[in-house]
Amino acid sequence: MEKTSSTAIAGISHDRDSIINLDHGDPTMFEPFWKEVGNSATVVIPGWQKMSYFSDPRNLCWFLEPEFANEALRLHRIVGNAVTDDRHIIVGVGSTQLIHAALFALASTEARQPVNVISAAPYYSMYSGIADFMKSGMFRWAGDAAAFNGDDNFIELVCSPNNPDGEIRDAVRGNEAGKRVHDMAYYWPQYTPMRRSADHDVMLFTVSKATGHAGTRIGWALVKDAEVARKMAKFIEMNTIGVSKDSQVRAAKILKVITDGYELPDLEAGSKFFHFGRCLLANRWQRLRQAVKASGRFSLPQFPSEFCEFFKEQAETYPGFAWLRCEDQTIEDLEVFFKTLNILTRSGRQFGVGPEFVRVSMLDRDANFDVFIKRISSFE
Amino acid sequence: MEKTSSTAIAGISHDRDSIINLDHGDPTMFEPFWKEVGNSATVVIPGWQKMSYFSDPRNLCWFLEPEFANEALRLHRIVGNAVTDDRHIIVGVGSTQLIHAALFALASTEARQPVNVISAAPYYSMYSGIADFMKSGMFRWAGDAAAFNGDDNFIELVCSPNNPDGEIRDAVRGNEAGKRVHDMAYYWPQYTPMRRSADHDVMLFTVSKATGHAGTRIGWALVKDAEVARKMAKFIEMNTIGVSKDSQVRAAKILKVITDGYELPDLEAGSKFFHFGRCLLANRWQRLRQAVKASGRFSLPQFPSEFCEFFKEQAETYPGFAWLRCEDQTIEDLEVFFKTLNILTRSGRQFGVGPEFVRVSMLDRDANFDVFIKRISSFE
Repeated sequence: MEKTSSTAIAGISHDRDSIINLDHGDPTMFEPFWKEVGNSATVVIPGWQKMSYFSDPRNLCWFLEPEFANEALRLHRIVGNAVTDDRHIIVGVGSTQLIHAALFALASTEARQPVNVISAAPYYSMYSGIADFMKSGMFRWAGDAAAFNGDDNFIELVCSPNNPDGEIRDAVRGNEAGKRVHDMAYYWPQYTPMRRSADHDVMLFTVSKATGHAGTRIGWALVKDAEVARKMAKFIEMNTIGVSKDSQVRAAKILKVITDGYELPDLEAGSKFFHFGRCLLANRWQRLRQAVKASGRFSLPQFPSEFCEFFKEQAETYPGFAWLRCEDQTIEDLEVFFKTLNILTRSGRQFGVGPEFVRVSMLDRDANFDVFIKRISSFE
Repeated sequence: MEKTSSTAIAGISHDRDSIINLDHGDPTMFEPFWKEVGNSATVVIPGWQKMSYFSDPRNLCWFLEPEFANEALRLHRIVGNAVTDDRHIIVGVGSTQLIHAALFALASTEARQPVNVISAAPYYSMYSGIADFMKSGMFRWAGDAAAFNGDDNFIELVCSPNNPDGEIRDAVRGNEAGKRVHDMAYYWPQYTPMRRSADHDVMLFTVSKATGHAGTRIGWALVKDAEVARKMAKFIEMNTIGVSKDSQVRAAKILKVITDGYELPDLEAGSKFFHFGRCLLANRWQRLRQAVKASGRFSLPQFPSEFCEFFKEQAETYPGFAWLRCEDQTIEDLEVFFKTLNILTRSGRQFGVGPEFVRVSMLDRDANFDVFIKRISSFE
C-alpha cells in the first residue's frame, strides 16, 4: 500500500523507506525559478570561444572573466550587501577554494607560522578540515574562537549569517590584531534582512547559495589589500591554474537575469529572484516551526524581525539550514535519531558542539522537504 | 614604417616592439578547427539544469558527470592511448588539481611522511611548486629523480611525452618500490606517434592539451586502485567540493565532436581533429627547424619517426613545446636573450637544468608563431 501511494519525483521514490539526504546544503530548491525564467538564463558557448587560459592578463586575477566581474558588482549594487569600491575581485572554484586561498594569502604575510585558524562554535563543519587536511606548516586549525587563548597569530573565520545556525555575527576577536576572513555565502535577501553593506578586508561569496547554482562551482572574494588579493590569485594559479571560464560565463548570465529582474521595469513579477526565494523559504520555515512545536521534542533558533534595506520593509530571517536542538532527554544523539527516520542530517559534533544538535538543509527540492516535514510530524 | 606594416590580430599589434608571450603553453592554435566545425561543438545549458552539487551519488567520484566520463572513455578507445578497463575516472579542475590530488592520495597511504616527490630533469616547471607551496607535512619536493638517492619513500612524477622536451619516458626509478604518477597530458596523436595503450596505476590527462580548451579547466585521471581513487576524490571534495558541471558538459561535447569525426563515416575530412592538429604542428616544426638551422645558434631535440597505431603509418613527433638549447657561447642566458627580442620564454632553470635552455610554446595562435619565426630568422 505504502509502495503504491508513494510519489516518484526526479527518480526518487518517497515511500517510508526512502532516504532523504538533508546533510548537504544542496540548493536545488531554486530550480523552479530558473525553469520559469526560461531562455534568458540559458548559456550558449561556441566550441571555439573561451579556449585560452587567460581572461584578462592586465588584471592581477588574470583568470577573472570581465563579464562575470561586472555582473557580480552589478548584483552587489542592487542588493546592497557589500561595499565594492576599491576592492579586488578574485574568482574561485566555489567559495571553498577561496577559503584555502585566503588562509594561504594571510598566513604568507605572517612571520610566525603555523598561524592558528579559529572560528566561533558552532562553526561551519568544513573549516577544520580545510585548515588541516594538507598538514600545512603555514596554518593549523585551533578550534572555537571563543575558547582560543593564543596571541594575535591567528586568522578568524567569521561566517555571517552563520552556517549552521543563521546568526548574524561579528568577529569574536574583533579588537585584537590577527586577521579575519568574512564568509558571507548566506548574506542575501532570501535568507536574512539586508542591514547594511558589509565592509571587511576579505569577504567571500558564492553563486551556489546566492542563486542555487552549486554545480557551477563559482565563488568570489572582495579583497581590500592588493598584496592579499595577489597571493590569493597565486594560490589559485598553483592549485588549479585559474577557474573555469565556462562557469564564469554561465554565472555572469545567471547573475544578470537576477539583476535585470529588478532593474528592468518591464519584466513581470515572476522574474524577481529574491522575492521567489524568500517566499518559498518563508513557507518552509512556517511549516517547520509548526511541526517542531507540535512535536514538543525540538527547538529552533529565534530571530527578531529587522528592517531590510533591500525589500524596504520589516523582514524575517529564513536561514538556509535549520539548526535543530533536541529537547527530549530520551534522545542522546539527534543525528542517529533522524537516521532512524531515514533522514540524513549533520551532527552538531561536526560544528564543534554536542550531539543534541543537527543541521538540516532547508534548500532541497519541494518533494524532499515535504517528506521531511511529514516524517517529523508523524513519528511517535 | 614598421608600425604601418604591422598586422593587428586579436587586438595584438605585431610591430617590432610587441611582446610575444610563448612562456605558457596556451593552446589557442586549435581555435580555427573549432570555428570550422561550427554549431556541433556549441554547448547550451538552460538556467535550471546542472544546479546540484551531485552528478552521480553512487560513484565514488560523486561529482563526475556521466556524459563526460562516457566521452572520455570513447575517445581513449578510438585513440588507443590508455587502457581504460577496470579503471576509476576522477575528474579534476585541470590536470593540475589532479597532481595535487594524486600526491595527497599516494602520500596518505605511506606511513613515513613527508614523502619525497621526484621527477627526472628537465621536469615540468610546476611540479616543484605544486609539491612545496603549501608547506605540506605529507610530501616535499626532492628534485631530479635521476639524482635522488633516498629510499623507497618517494612518488615519481613521470611526464610522457615530457614537458618541456617531448621525450617519451618511463619511470627512472622503475624497479623499486615507491609510487608513480604518469602525467600524460601530451600523449595524443597530434604530438607524438601512438605506440601502445599506456597501462599505469595513475594516469593523468587534460582537455587543455587534448583539444585546446584550456579555459575549461577539465582534467581526468584513470586510476587502478579504488582506495587511491577514493582519496583523490576526497582531496577534490575538500579543495573545491567537486568540479564545474558546466565545464564537464562542455568538455563532453568537445570530446564527442572529435570522436564522431572519426567514427561517423559521413562527416567530411575537415572534421578530423588529430589530422588538423598534426598538420598544423608539422608545418610549424618544419619552419622552426629551418629557422633554427639557419641561425646556427640553437639546437632542438631530434626524434626518430615511429609507427603510429592511430594514423596507421610512420609518423613524426611534434611536441607542444620547442626545447631550445643555445649553441652560441656568447649568449649566457637564453631566456634573457629572447627577452631582448621581445619574446617571452621559460628558462631551463625552471625545469631543473641550465640557462642555456628555454621552453617555447608551439601552441599559440598563427600570428604569434609567425612573429616568433620572423624574429629568430632576422636577428644578427
